[in-house]
Amino acid sequence: MTEASHEASRARTGPRTSTTTRGETVTSAIPAVDTAGVNAMLERGRTLATPVLRAAVERLAPPMDTVAAYHFGWIDAEGRPAHGDSGKAVRPALALLSAEAAGRAPEVGIPGAVAVELVHNFSLLHDDLMDGDEQRRHRDTVWKVYGPEQAILVGDALFALANEILLELGTVEAGRATRRLTTATRKLIDGQAQDISYEHRERVTVEECLEMEGNKTGALLACAVSIGAVLGGADDRTADILEAYGYHLGLAFQAVDDLLGIWGDPEATGKQTWSDLRQRKKSLPVVAALAAGGEASERLAEILAADAKLSDAQLADFDEEEFASRAALIEEAGGREWTSQEARRQHATAIEALDRVDMPAEVRAQLVALADFVVVRKR
Amino acid sequence: MTEASHEASRARTGPRTSTTTRGETVTSAIPAVDTAGVNAMLERGRTLATPVLRAAVERLAPPMDTVAAYHFGWIDAEGRPAHGDSGKAVRPALALLSAEAAGRAPEVGIPGAVAVELVHNFSLLHDDLMDGDEQRRHRDTVWKVYGPEQAILVGDALFALANEILLELGTVEAGRATRRLTTATRKLIDGQAQDISYEHRERVTVEECLEMEGNKTGALLACAVSIGAVLGGADDRTADILEAYGYHLGLAFQAVDDLLGIWGDPEATGKQTWSDLRQRKKSLPVVAALAAGGEASERLAEILAADAKLSDAQLADFDEEEFASRAALIEEAGGREWTSQEARRQHATAIEALDRVDMPAEVRAQLVALADFVVVRKR
Repeated sequence: MTEASHEASRARTGPRTSTTTRGETVTSAIPAVDTAGVNAMLERGRTLATPVLRAAVERLAPPMDTVAAYHFGWIDAEGRPAHGDSGKAVRPALALLSAEAAGRAPEVGIPGAVAVELVHNFSLLHDDLMDGDEQRRHRDTVWKVYGPEQAILVGDALFALANEILLELGTVEAGRATRRLTTATRKLIDGQAQDISYEHRERVTVEECLEMEGNKTGALLACAVSIGAVLGGADDRTADILEAYGYHLGLAFQAVDDLLGIWGDPEATGKQTWSDLRQRKKSLPVVAALAAGGEASERLAEILAADAKLSDAQLADFDEEEFASRAALIEEAGGREWTSQEARRQHATAIEALDRVDMPAEVRAQLVALADFVVVRKR
Repeated sequence: MTEASHEASRARTGPRTSTTTRGETVTSAIPAVDTAGVNAMLERGRTLATPVLRAAVERLAPPMDTVAAYHFGWIDAEGRPAHGDSGKAVRPALALLSAEAAGRAPEVGIPGAVAVELVHNFSLLHDDLMDGDEQRRHRDTVWKVYGPEQAILVGDALFALANEILLELGTVEAGRATRRLTTATRKLIDGQAQDISYEHRERVTVEECLEMEGNKTGALLACAVSIGAVLGGADDRTADILEAYGYHLGLAFQAVDDLLGIWGDPEATGKQTWSDLRQRKKSLPVVAALAAGGEASERLAEILAADAKLSDAQLADFDEEEFASRAALIEEAGGREWTSQEARRQHATAIEALDRVDMPAEVRAQLVALADFVVVRKR
């Protein structure tokens, strides 16, 4: 990752825009990022994994099949076919590359891609309900449309389906892959538990925040990068190194997510303005700003301590200006800059891991390009 | 199972009571039921599985370890050690017998016993939340004590832990066992989805009700009876036959549960009087009464149709008499008698399955005794 990819530099050089085949506008200030290549890679993941994912979801008993199809953006709330945003699909793309990293055809990774995507969406369904999030990918969340019961049930069903898809392969490798997926899922749940408990605590250390984000985001991305290789017969050492890449990629991804959660463009992210501040999220910029010391840091601490005494309803009544002033304090205390640098550090560590495993040069190049993309994305 | 075990006959002959080593009062009218033997079998299941189950639960990140320990009755809501009722533990006992049915030591079934128990309790945590049940095993449910988020999270964590416990064995058999457990879990979720949707429907056929109960109760009991054998290296044919026993045992179990859900003694069941009627459950006695035709059936249908227009709060305001009169109509229409006979039919089918597989005579005798026990239990 080049210096120019860093959030601050991007602001300095000014964004460039290009339009992909899917009509999205991609903003980038890094000439080095192979946007067309990354988009082709993500598109391949979607193209190969989605039919298998849809067939898996069709196994669910009604009305869970319908609720899941809505969640994935395949139908609207009235049941009509739709082409909703079903996410960036970074994980399926990684699972296919993972098979290729082990010298196998990308198709070998498909059950892994589908299983990881099912677990990811299980966690989204449950997390949106627990967090009270009403919107995801520009649409009402499942609990909002179909009620909490369906969000719980369909989440459970997607989790079970993930294991089923892998285990019905009936191979030793499938058992190993499922074990890794299960470990990742447990970390995912640990991370959500930490996230919830941190929202009620006044102080969270930077280390605690990184651990939580490693669990919530790093673990499943790590699994995505190893699962195709494991299904293709790779040994545990290779799988562990691929997981190290994925884990740090996940932390880079999450650092960028935390930046977007405060300063992201609602049009691009599909979330409210100042989304994470509205939810009192102890995300990296906040935690780093509080740890920084100095005048802005102390003022921020005082304000957040006062906010903590308010009810969610009172916080929701704040106008834009009040959140904007909190964001400005976070930036002044250095939380934004530190988080940008952290994204860069994690990006570098991820790419270093790739040097420890033999893989086709073309696959390595794509994993590097994906890491670059993750750090410069706007959504 | 003898004629005398039937609900109606039991009323005729009058109950006998005996006291077990755990101080529980066991009521039985079947001289043939080896109550002491069954209690010893259940106790063995608890003794061998509980330490492994507790060690598994201790892996959970705080506060999930505490919440799970409360759910299992190991601590009270203030965190003090407790010896709460953690259920009948039929499933762990079956998993150990299952290993013995395959000619192996009972200990071979322990990871299966623990995994099945974890999945069972995952479903209890989520179902209690979805159904709004405030009490289980004479104590406040987890969502009531710790909030809905913890009920969702800890349920998810127990489900993941179940797979982890099996897959970390690292054997081909463990992969096969996990696949069976996953299939059972999917059916469990399908059953809960059907249960929820039936509560909003005016008419449910007896077949639909049996399918739902087979999913909710039969599938996991079936898995419990096959999982120890599979871990012990039994082939799929043997496992399938053991599952057939377990499936029909589950349907017998559920028919009795449906009787207890209406006519059970709250002291024994730990549930409210007329519990299932308060929740508008379309359980077997209700569905069979509605299908029976005749005067009482038609009056029942009219009353339930009128009830369907009431809110949950209005239904909760009913006094005991109103539920008692509904229960009397169900009985008059033959729903209670039909369900008692259904329990007996399923019990007979379960025991027939045992003749199709070679197993030590002592193990077969214990499986028969357990089936007898399931049908005569009062809680």
